[in-house]
Amino acid sequence: MAAPIGSEIERLIQLLARLPGLGPRSARRAALHLIRKREALLVPLADALKLAAERITVCPICNNVDTRAPCGICEDERRDKSLLVVVADVGDLWALERAGTLRARYHVLGGTLSPLDGIGPKELGIERLVARVAEGEIKEVVLALNATVDGQTTAHYITDALAPLSIKVTRLAHGVPVGGELDYLDEGTLAAALRARTAM
Amino acid sequence: MAAPIGSEIERLIQLLARLPGLGPRSARRAALHLIRKREALLVPLADALKLAAERITVCPICNNVDTRAPCGICEDERRDKSLLVVVADVGDLWALERAGTLRARYHVLGGTLSPLDGIGPKELGIERLVARVAEGEIKEVVLALNATVDGQTTAHYITDALAPLSIKVTRLAHGVPVGGELDYLDEGTLAAALRARTAM
Repeated sequence: MAAPIGSEIERLIQLLARLPGLGPRSARRAALHLIRKREALLVPLADALKLAAERITVCPICNNVDTRAPCGICEDERRDKSLLVVVADVGDLWALERAGTLRARYHVLGGTLSPLDGIGPKELGIERLVARVAEGEIKEVVLALNATVDGQTTAHYITDALAPLSIKVTRLAHGVPVGGELDYLDEGTLAAALRARTAM
Repeated sequence: MAAPIGSEIERLIQLLARLPGLGPRSARRAALHLIRKREALLVPLADALKLAAERITVCPICNNVDTRAPCGICEDERRDKSLLVVVADVGDLWALERAGTLRARYHVLGGTLSPLDGIGPKELGIERLVARVAEGEIKEVVLALNATVDGQTTAHYITDALAPLSIKVTRLAHGVPVGGELDYLDEGTLAAALRARTAM
């Protein structure tokens, strides 16, 4: 693939192929699509990426990414200051905001405890989280972490770390996904859904 | 999805979602990946897109896209000047170059005849292709067009248009794809492969 494609196009394809969800073939298709839609897509995307590179920063309070610091969520006065939702990742924060149930604030850990990968409490800044909760405004901490071994280990560690503060610590409910068919669910989820059954 | 994501990030996600192969969910993942890898990916991709927007142009001879005009293929003196491969699309040109069998030149039509979509011989510049072939250097035209109705209609139209020049006009062979299993192939392909059978 050396000669035919100009080196600038080649480099664009290689960079696009490093995006999650795009392989070499779809990166080529994407590059061609961009080249064809120069004014409608290529130029705006170049500008949007440049702007993102210049402006996006990590919130010093909650580790969210935004174009301002503190971030829009930390600055949002309409949110319940007594409720703090702990997530592993900014993507989880976005997902919860799309669900739109809680008008809470967040704390983004940036991962979960994973001793094998060298990620301990220090790397996740759990001390900083505890200090934030200790300031007194927060009444409930919701641990919205993945229902995986790493996620639950992290949840237990944080619960222990917050114990001296004697505030309410909760986790997301386990159960049948909305629209989910029982036949396709694993036994663990079904058992959890049965135990947590609610009145009609 | 209004409040939580800054408007610059939101716009970046919307633009990424317009790339082929990326939906809204994978566009969010891609945006997050870019934000996390600011120096390694976000900045280089922004630069590569900007460079592409500034430099990429359509070759006045063959309609290929490149950062120079005439393009690298038309300028490549090692290529066989007597062989012209006609393709519908730059993506097809890239695919044939990856196969790397022919050191030929190309002519990119920019589509196939499709009367219902208002694409006729004029839109594809078939006159210009005929004029290019009439210059006398080209001895064989390979019609490397999709084996679809539109592709084959276009191939027949071009064959007729080139007939007065009495040069050799060929098309790609039909047959079993390399690595393909007979059981999964359609009858049309199998029939064509049988008709075009070759000696062992």
